[in-house]
Amino acid sequence: MRTSIATVSLSGSLTEKLTAASRAGFDGVEIFENDLLASPLSPREVRARCADLGLTVDLYQPLRDIEAVPEGEFGRNLRRARHKFELMGELGADTVLVCSSVSPSAVDDDALAARQLSELASLAADFGIRVAYEALAWGRHVSTYDHAWRIVEAAGHPALGTCLDSFHILSRGSDPKGIEDIPGEKIFFLQLADAPLLAMDVLQWSRHYRCFPGQGGFDVAGLVRHVLRTGYDGPLSLEVFNDVFRQAEAGPTAVDARRSLLMLQEAVGVAELPAPVVPTGVAFAELVTPDAEPVSALLGALGFARTARHRSKPVDLWELGEARILVNTGPAARRDGTGLAAIGLESPDPRAAARRAEALLAPVLPRRRAPEDVPLDAVAAPDGTELFFCATGRAPELPDWLADFAAVPHEPAPSPARIDHLALVQPWHQYDEAALFHRAVLGLHAQDSVDVADPYGLLRSRAVTDAGGRVRIALGVGAAPADDTLHAQHIALAVDDVVAAARAFRAAGGAPLPIPGNYHDDLAARYEFPDGELETYRELGILYDRDAGGAFRHCYTRTVGRVFFELVERDPGYRGYGAQNAPVRLAAQHAGRPAR
Amino acid sequence: MRTSIATVSLSGSLTEKLTAASRAGFDGVEIFENDLLASPLSPREVRARCADLGLTVDLYQPLRDIEAVPEGEFGRNLRRARHKFELMGELGADTVLVCSSVSPSAVDDDALAARQLSELASLAADFGIRVAYEALAWGRHVSTYDHAWRIVEAAGHPALGTCLDSFHILSRGSDPKGIEDIPGEKIFFLQLADAPLLAMDVLQWSRHYRCFPGQGGFDVAGLVRHVLRTGYDGPLSLEVFNDVFRQAEAGPTAVDARRSLLMLQEAVGVAELPAPVVPTGVAFAELVTPDAEPVSALLGALGFARTARHRSKPVDLWELGEARILVNTGPAARRDGTGLAAIGLESPDPRAAARRAEALLAPVLPRRRAPEDVPLDAVAAPDGTELFFCATGRAPELPDWLADFAAVPHEPAPSPARIDHLALVQPWHQYDEAALFHRAVLGLHAQDSVDVADPYGLLRSRAVTDAGGRVRIALGVGAAPADDTLHAQHIALAVDDVVAAARAFRAAGGAPLPIPGNYHDDLAARYEFPDGELETYRELGILYDRDAGGAFRHCYTRTVGRVFFELVERDPGYRGYGAQNAPVRLAAQHAGRPAR
Repeated sequence: MRTSIATVSLSGSLTEKLTAASRAGFDGVEIFENDLLASPLSPREVRARCADLGLTVDLYQPLRDIEAVPEGEFGRNLRRARHKFELMGELGADTVLVCSSVSPSAVDDDALAARQLSELASLAADFGIRVAYEALAWGRHVSTYDHAWRIVEAAGHPALGTCLDSFHILSRGSDPKGIEDIPGEKIFFLQLADAPLLAMDVLQWSRHYRCFPGQGGFDVAGLVRHVLRTGYDGPLSLEVFNDVFRQAEAGPTAVDARRSLLMLQEAVGVAELPAPVVPTGVAFAELVTPDAEPVSALLGALGFARTARHRSKPVDLWELGEARILVNTGPAARRDGTGLAAIGLESPDPRAAARRAEALLAPVLPRRRAPEDVPLDAVAAPDGTELFFCATGRAPELPDWLADFAAVPHEPAPSPARIDHLALVQPWHQYDEAALFHRAVLGLHAQDSVDVADPYGLLRSRAVTDAGGRVRIALGVGAAPADDTLHAQHIALAVDDVVAAARAFRAAGGAPLPIPGNYHDDLAARYEFPDGELETYRELGILYDRDAGGAFRHCYTRTVGRVFFELVERDPGYRGYGAQNAPVRLAAQHAGRPAR
Repeated sequence: MRTSIATVSLSGSLTEKLTAASRAGFDGVEIFENDLLASPLSPREVRARCADLGLTVDLYQPLRDIEAVPEGEFGRNLRRARHKFELMGELGADTVLVCSSVSPSAVDDDALAARQLSELASLAADFGIRVAYEALAWGRHVSTYDHAWRIVEAAGHPALGTCLDSFHILSRGSDPKGIEDIPGEKIFFLQLADAPLLAMDVLQWSRHYRCFPGQGGFDVAGLVRHVLRTGYDGPLSLEVFNDVFRQAEAGPTAVDARRSLLMLQEAVGVAELPAPVVPTGVAFAELVTPDAEPVSALLGALGFARTARHRSKPVDLWELGEARILVNTGPAARRDGTGLAAIGLESPDPRAAARRAEALLAPVLPRRRAPEDVPLDAVAAPDGTELFFCATGRAPELPDWLADFAAVPHEPAPSPARIDHLALVQPWHQYDEAALFHRAVLGLHAQDSVDVADPYGLLRSRAVTDAGGRVRIALGVGAAPADDTLHAQHIALAVDDVVAAARAFRAAGGAPLPIPGNYHDDLAARYEFPDGELETYRELGILYDRDAGGAFRHCYTRTVGRVFFELVERDPGYRGYGAQNAPVRLAAQHAGRPAR
């Protein structure tokens, strides 16, 4: 099926919007009137630009407050419509969206509405234009899709059909099953948007909080299935009003939009993508750093041993039990400072995983960075993190990244550990997009988003994970693009005994994050601990949380560059990440920084 | 009455919050538990810090999910409370807030709630502590203030009273009149917050959108009047949860908070402030610029004549009819580039206006900048704009700023004009605060806030004006602190004939902002104009708007530094500022800039 996007969904000038839609692979666009009005390009120039970009103009929108009004007013409305039909001819658009009236002068008279819409359709037909009538969720007299359809049906004009919009239908809680009663050829257009489930004024909800399908709480795929059963064969078009997208760069937003639509097409069976290959574990985390010394000292204090060195690059492998960290002092490090740059994911089929990622518009990275390297499949996540699909030492026919490394003499690591989770900082504009990316590309599940109070703002965090909890990635973002220093990436190591690990870390000269005594006083009020346990936590800066499934004990190192480590001891049934304690951790991290 | 603020209302570490509250002149604070937990200061150290800062600890908050639970659970709750009462002793807090339970294990049994609260109060009394029980708007069984009071009354314990919170009462639409049925001595605490009138989930509304009294839509003053009639003599305390304040600097937020409380105290008659002195006109606008040439060229093309020069400073006076612009090339200009730095407001009593501003915590500027200058009363607005209170040539006993200027030879200005309005850009965090400031300090009225779509984000704008429309200041802000280049300050000049003025501007070599032809095509669709009129608008880049009171015709100059001019012809009945056309203007301004 053809895909389309409304220009209002993207940021920037009309030219920037069209370019972004084309580059992301959309077939067409809806031209939002205000975007045209503000453009220095004439309608003919817009048409030519679209043609150059391989885009059709699938819809011109909207005409407002047309129908069910006194005759004098309707005459003026027809005059206005005629102007727009002439313009649409120059623009090369053959369908116009008419929203149900919100005008105070509109009357509750379906027969009048049908007669006037029929008259409008006759005028449109003279210009070779079709009229798609849509019920706004807050329309004055017509606010449901079935009501709009009854009026269209009563009008009985061949150039008059209906436009369905998933937001307007699902936000009102209408049952979309009734869509199947509409003949497919009378559905002139289908607009898709999702939205978080918010209890708020529907107009504000629509204008500011729509999102792409799969990012919100609506069953958009279910609605589309009903529409497809009618025989509808027009485009699937995204129309999303969102304050965040308004400020985000159009290019990445358009890519996220089309990825969302691809997922939707896969869900309803009109697009075939390579099947998801869910990762089965974390092969490694790669830190880049311009200065290996503080990172090495931190890893050493955590018990990691430097076990191998890359044969051709300045990259060391550090291991502690099953946890592997690469430390890269190559050129990227000198550019970006110390940070978490890449994640290796164990994949049952690395090539297939990369093929799916590519089909879902993830930038594919070169398989071989240097002639002598083992070829590895890798893609870039929206935040720039490189995701490698690995088959570590698993089968001779699969490339093994470890073959690039030569062992160096080392002491055996003293205790078992593995990577419990990785926390990545997302660009402010791409929080929802990041979760959708990891779901779509990696087949992970997104957990609920949580708000975390930072002393200087509110953070949000959402984890994506596989069913077995072997891959857990926490995606975090500030509430507004205020201050990146609020955020830090981190690597959480699961250990069997966090007390022993914390003690060993200190004994080895590691710098733990100090936790205020007030926090432990509060723990004493909330929980009863065996004798001495709380004192140990207090001494070692260990935090404690508990849910229905069990307990979670954890502590933090100080930050190096943009990265810190966490040691966690997780009861098997505990589902969370200690978010309850994050405000205390954040305050302690701020307190350890130079004054603002 | 004493004033207090909850630490949760301010951003930063506990130390930063306490310092900001003290500097803004609050008498006390409510300590929010999470702020204490995250602080490296022990409770005793917090107590000492408060004492040093002249703050009392008026409330410790909150204890949650205490009452109406099975006995075993209540026992654990008492254990938890005992810990907190011990802590409060160290902290020097004698009142604790208990919120009505939201726990799934709470039962709907007022007698049980009363008995358990009474038991809690007995324990509290052993520590010299009073318990203030408050109905959360989303409490499981107790969600209204009168219900909470019935339980407190039934308990009949001297150490148990109620806490009233204006948000919890007004968000539910409860009638606050019933407050007068509560004996004043049983109201242990009064928390005040306002909120915009939003139709949304009350918990989310409360957690993210509260604001200071006078910034929202609640009648907080009306509620306080009811409370005062009971004989309540505790503090007026602000408790505001707000995502924006979380990111804003604590110092300015605390000042805004106390200004809001001063206004509230004035409104309910418990504080006497100097009466507002409403300005009666705009005496001048002052531009600073490091390079007078482009500004002079722009003013010259607009028809301004350079009429005088400051006797001791590099400041020129330009005049066009009643409009006066000062161009200052002094040191501030070299620091900040070209911008609108000051506004002169005609004031019936400049000294009194300054006294009120000072009482409302506006920074007062030195009256005399140099020994030879005429003394002038001036204060700084929250955005840093200097506001001068002027009595231009009005009475010999009042200082006249014009006396600092010496006339220079000039041609008479060709046409009448005056300043229609001034548009100022506000810091993102201070949009609501700016409106409150101008209302409070200047006695202006705030008009409704409007959203304006910019190609790269959403802007908000709200005008403050006097009843006669002689002083109009539009306060604008982006929706998020993304990109200051979205915004520009401007000076709108009212002219009798915008067509003639626009033509003269072009003829004099002025650079108008080009408006896309698509805009005028749309005007043709929306309105019928006399022959030739629309063509003139198109030729001259004139925009058009209309409301019930009349029409508005306007056009713009290109931007110099951060400032541009607008020429407006306003029908007397037209109330707005052409916000309908602002997206077109913003797109044209972006198009005229170097590529992003």
